[in-house]
Amino acid sequence: MRDQSLRIVLSSTRKFINMGALSRLWNLVKNFHAADISSLMSHLVFRERLILFNILFEKDMEKTGEVLSELEAEDAAPIIQELQLNQITELFHIIPSDDAAPILELLPENMKESILAAMEEKPSEDVKELLHYEEETAGRIMSPDFYALDHNTNVSDAITAMQLERDVESAFYLYTVDEKNRLVGVVSLRQLLFARPNTKLKDIMTKDLITVHPETDQEVVARNVAHYNLVAIPVVDAENTLVGVVTVDDVIDVIEEEATEDIYKMASLDTTDRIQDSPFKSIKKRIPFLMFSLLTASLAPLVVHYFEGTIEQFIKLVVFLPLVMALGGVAGNQTIAIIVREIAIGQAEWVGARKALMKEIIVGIGNGIIIGALLGGFSYLIVNNPYLGLILGLAIIINLFVAALVGTLIPLVLKLLKLDPALGSVNLLTMCTDSVGALTFLGLGTLFLDKL
Amino acid sequence: MRDQSLRIVLSSTRKFINMGALSRLWNLVKNFHAADISSLMSHLVFRERLILFNILFEKDMEKTGEVLSELEAEDAAPIIQELQLNQITELFHIIPSDDAAPILELLPENMKESILAAMEEKPSEDVKELLHYEEETAGRIMSPDFYALDHNTNVSDAITAMQLERDVESAFYLYTVDEKNRLVGVVSLRQLLFARPNTKLKDIMTKDLITVHPETDQEVVARNVAHYNLVAIPVVDAENTLVGVVTVDDVIDVIEEEATEDIYKMASLDTTDRIQDSPFKSIKKRIPFLMFSLLTASLAPLVVHYFEGTIEQFIKLVVFLPLVMALGGVAGNQTIAIIVREIAIGQAEWVGARKALMKEIIVGIGNGIIIGALLGGFSYLIVNNPYLGLILGLAIIINLFVAALVGTLIPLVLKLLKLDPALGSVNLLTMCTDSVGALTFLGLGTLFLDKL
Repeated sequence: MRDQSLRIVLSSTRKFINMGALSRLWNLVKNFHAADISSLMSHLVFRERLILFNILFEKDMEKTGEVLSELEAEDAAPIIQELQLNQITELFHIIPSDDAAPILELLPENMKESILAAMEEKPSEDVKELLHYEEETAGRIMSPDFYALDHNTNVSDAITAMQLERDVESAFYLYTVDEKNRLVGVVSLRQLLFARPNTKLKDIMTKDLITVHPETDQEVVARNVAHYNLVAIPVVDAENTLVGVVTVDDVIDVIEEEATEDIYKMASLDTTDRIQDSPFKSIKKRIPFLMFSLLTASLAPLVVHYFEGTIEQFIKLVVFLPLVMALGGVAGNQTIAIIVREIAIGQAEWVGARKALMKEIIVGIGNGIIIGALLGGFSYLIVNNPYLGLILGLAIIINLFVAALVGTLIPLVLKLLKLDPALGSVNLLTMCTDSVGALTFLGLGTLFLDKL
Repeated sequence: MRDQSLRIVLSSTRKFINMGALSRLWNLVKNFHAADISSLMSHLVFRERLILFNILFEKDMEKTGEVLSELEAEDAAPIIQELQLNQITELFHIIPSDDAAPILELLPENMKESILAAMEEKPSEDVKELLHYEEETAGRIMSPDFYALDHNTNVSDAITAMQLERDVESAFYLYTVDEKNRLVGVVSLRQLLFARPNTKLKDIMTKDLITVHPETDQEVVARNVAHYNLVAIPVVDAENTLVGVVTVDDVIDVIEEEATEDIYKMASLDTTDRIQDSPFKSIKKRIPFLMFSLLTASLAPLVVHYFEGTIEQFIKLVVFLPLVMALGGVAGNQTIAIIVREIAIGQAEWVGARKALMKEIIVGIGNGIIIGALLGGFSYLIVNNPYLGLILGLAIIINLFVAALVGTLIPLVLKLLKLDPALGSVNLLTMCTDSVGALTFLGLGTLFLDKL
């Protein structure tokens, strides 16, 4: 839905809700795609969401399930809490278990248990199984519904068998298993369509499979799907038994989530901070990062404090100090962004770490010489003091060298320590460049004080 | 390929190349997935790449085509330039035209023309057609190969017709067209597999289609595929004639590319800057951003210069100045990152701009009061001057308010001006927070100078 039409739909929705014109509301939304209804809901307040959800539930249960699947679990859970137990189980039987599990997990413990008890055995087991895996792993995002048949089945039997199955999410591939139920191959529906009816699956299947385990980090799953251009990736346990399938639509969500996380972490933000959150909620989420910044930003003032005597004797130093600090910060940020992103998209293996460091250092010194010479020359023209120009230029060169050095090392060392390379790295960098900037500039100033 | 094994494979590859042991090299790589060979190549220098490419070409033309498709156009073009014309046309007949077009575009004009002339008519036309569209549009990333049949065709004829077609990239859907060749529906291979042979396509097809135009921005294409959980999206012209299909693997590339672009732009980086680039190349790409930073960072020194008199009388002000600046920068960055990312993933329509601004301002003032009170109190304990604490606290509150205000407005205004919301926004923000920080803190200092 385009911005323009969303605005119109949103205001009509609100009007109908306030007027209590529920059948007009239903007529407005009934032909919308579930993904659009879900977007629309995210712009409504909770009371309005509930009214819209109820009219959907009353009119079209199937569509309500689709909308529920599209909603973020955090948005879906409070709505579910307002429903009757039998309504909830009805919905949870419709939606895929990998969408039901994260919602269920956000509900109060006793409610969660009564729902699982009230559900039919198979879907209930599926959901429990998923909840069993850790967050952000393949196990959490996989669907336990898939087509799998013995590799000795022939094509026409396979087609008949699949027709009897209920609708499954990953409908592009048929997986094949051996006598011991181990995954041995995959047949695309296209291969199935074009094969002779009496051909055995094992004669047309692709055997060279890329698989992941339920414990595999979801980022690695996404990497594999993107790297090998897959539409679905099978998830197998230690015995190579197929336990689920991760489809490309879930992978896209992971990729977007991870990119947002990198941007947020580099900008000192909690990854759950959203534009729709209440101000109070956002303040609570941002204060810890500001506290940490307060801490890292306190080193530079100590350096400046140490050089108070020098500053008192030549006050001009203070005017140029913010420039030395700012440029070190910008140059260091360039380096950090490159390293963090290349780590994220899997380019920067330790194979290349030393090479990357050498390169960034050369870039830092090179940029330092250019910007340092420029700024030094400029300041000479303004203040007409060659020594001020000289120490300013030198301070920039040294600070850009340090920016390159720590900008490369911080994310790599954080990764080596199995910490997040993006988280806090910009703060640590600024701490270094601000302090080293002050130290070299004011230090050189002290050294040449009689010439200034 | 995991880091560990890449490292081993890389060193073996280098060894075999240096020894001239080409058949051992071939044995090493022959069972690798094309995507892995392409990754391997990106770690080799050009001479080594060429040797590996040549042995591939000699042994397995089909695989060479797949590797070529996987390579970035920037990496593929120099290799292509080293081949014979007949080798090039052979390869360009194998690879999809949406992979051939960007490579071709990077070749010298005369070479490009002789290749297009030497190619068979159909693929040559396809490539020319794609080159005709602007960069970063659906037209550039779509594949002109797809299955489309008249909607009156019955299922068994459709299956026969598709069997005769050569392998097409988007093999999950069959599109249906009317008498005037306009797109009217889509049939999934699953529907085809389970339908009775004499059913007409129009009786099983899905009519409610989500389409894009060749001129549609690739980011919008990606948004649609992600939002509606699609595996492929049809591209139609103004007459609703099907001209191509964008598949989900290309969409994943776009999503990753756009996320990298946002991170890079926010960090003052050229979007083509890569870890593998030579230092000289990176310096050239980064200098313009550093120049721009030099410009924006020059406002704060002017403010400081204006208050030199005040500083001379109370030097302690200078010690705390970097803190006021740094915290304004961090808080503003938090706001910018949220707004830029929400614009990117399509959440921040102008519907919500005023709401977002109000919220961020409340957050800015709230955080300002907390951090300001803390820092003010702290500085009082250290310097034992209540007025210094007071003006420090006030300066932080005002600066965090300004950070929230400009942090929200800069990306929104840039977007309104049809400029990139991420590009240069952090520089402009820091310009504001550094200057306003200096202005309020030193201004208040001047006001209360007799009390300090």
